[in-house]
Amino acid sequence: MKLLRVGPAGSERPALLDAGGTLRDLSGVVSDVDGALLSDASALARVRDAAAAGDLPALDADGLRTGPPLARIGKIVCIGLNYHDHATETGAAIPAEPILFMKAPDTVVGPEDTVLVPRGSEKTDWEVELAVVIGRTARYLESDADALAAVAGYAVAHDVSERAFQLERGGQWDKGKNCETFNPLGPWLVTADEVPDPQALGLRLWVNGEKRQDGTTADQIFPVAQVVRYLSRFMTLYPGDVINTGTPAGVAMGMPEPKPYLRAGDVVELEIDGLGRQRQEFKAA
Amino acid sequence: MKLLRVGPAGSERPALLDAGGTLRDLSGVVSDVDGALLSDASALARVRDAAAAGDLPALDADGLRTGPPLARIGKIVCIGLNYHDHATETGAAIPAEPILFMKAPDTVVGPEDTVLVPRGSEKTDWEVELAVVIGRTARYLESDADALAAVAGYAVAHDVSERAFQLERGGQWDKGKNCETFNPLGPWLVTADEVPDPQALGLRLWVNGEKRQDGTTADQIFPVAQVVRYLSRFMTLYPGDVINTGTPAGVAMGMPEPKPYLRAGDVVELEIDGLGRQRQEFKAA
Repeated sequence: MKLLRVGPAGSERPALLDAGGTLRDLSGVVSDVDGALLSDASALARVRDAAAAGDLPALDADGLRTGPPLARIGKIVCIGLNYHDHATETGAAIPAEPILFMKAPDTVVGPEDTVLVPRGSEKTDWEVELAVVIGRTARYLESDADALAAVAGYAVAHDVSERAFQLERGGQWDKGKNCETFNPLGPWLVTADEVPDPQALGLRLWVNGEKRQDGTTADQIFPVAQVVRYLSRFMTLYPGDVINTGTPAGVAMGMPEPKPYLRAGDVVELEIDGLGRQRQEFKAA
Repeated sequence: MKLLRVGPAGSERPALLDAGGTLRDLSGVVSDVDGALLSDASALARVRDAAAAGDLPALDADGLRTGPPLARIGKIVCIGLNYHDHATETGAAIPAEPILFMKAPDTVVGPEDTVLVPRGSEKTDWEVELAVVIGRTARYLESDADALAAVAGYAVAHDVSERAFQLERGGQWDKGKNCETFNPLGPWLVTADEVPDPQALGLRLWVNGEKRQDGTTADQIFPVAQVVRYLSRFMTLYPGDVINTGTPAGVAMGMPEPKPYLRAGDVVELEIDGLGRQRQEFKAA
């Protein structure tokens, strides 16, 4: 299923994009798309049955904002340098184990919402990423199968990053990862049953129409199952948590000088096979 | 006011500790202690008036668990190496600007709840910290006065840390800061009006009855107002966010070998002047 949330920011309603591409209202079946729904097999079955039965009213998508496809996110854990080609372009060694940093859930916006270039920023950068959404509590997992069973679904995430804040301001990457609006998410949360192989997804990103990233999750150093299993030894993952699994090559930081960092007025588009497409206009904070 | 939350984990009710030391039920006045309450001046005034009028029913504190004094925490931002004496003991340079890392809100437990030593941990360490609770949205603040006006109150935080996870596992401190139960908070959220000078608070911590930390917020490299103002340039702070402002000297990592890291069975007690006292038994995860 493709689950989403539509409507004004802060008052989105749950919806479903059906196989025919029609937007369907889910608000008569579930109250929202969140960790509670994703961990509730019978609620998910109700959604599935209503969709199959054709019981869901169509929504007019025209002019309707798409919000982030997940409400009440608990935490966002991010994996750094998780693609061979991206580690190479940044001049970093291939990590021996996953590098972990965090974004606050309040950085999440919808896939077409405005992204703000922070005041004083000269190095705002893009990063298309596969987001993993957790549907089952994960704690000291012992197998890759258990790890994948904890995954409710997948989405496109834009891990917007300010490189000077991240790397030149006294330590710890979180400082350049948590500016407001820095985590567009969506358009859809695609349930895991519709993503048979999370390691076979193409990811692409364009800036002002020029293709900048064109990678595949096959190049991930630590694949999704391994990431979820690894994280579960250092923290408990809960339904409604999100993991941004890293970005492939092609970010501004990896390009020759003058590096084309983002400025107000730029437009970024990004997509992942089967997970939909985002488009953001950048404005000054 | 000393606000708190009492009752079983996950179903705490709001309460107030009055000037006479009697626990009072707030559930007839407000639904919970959270960012919504802290940003609502009229709701806070209702609490104040009810307390002054003696209208609040007494609660029998006997056998009643104290939960964390804040519900629905949005994010926890932590400042690293923020005391001169602690930076010295760890052999680190005095930071030129605040070092920032993050803990997930799901690490928060009550002040007397069990803390779990992670599986495989050999370097679980203690850190008594002054927690700042945000009551007003803070974004690109321009003065220390604006920064302090955004602070709703203060609490004791225990920033439990696994040093091997933090420092020896491939980068970024968050990996050793987010284990389950790693952020006891409380017992009280003391409103800012009762903490006239956040830079004049003694902090102390004992392990199995032996005093290990005995510092003062006067030794903070970046005082509270400066921390809040600084953070507001890199992220937006919202009501219900928490800032752990760093720990003074005396952690296990700073001691001679063999360093007395925490093990199952250890008991840690910690307190800050005017903000109350915590006590945790450590058990194996």
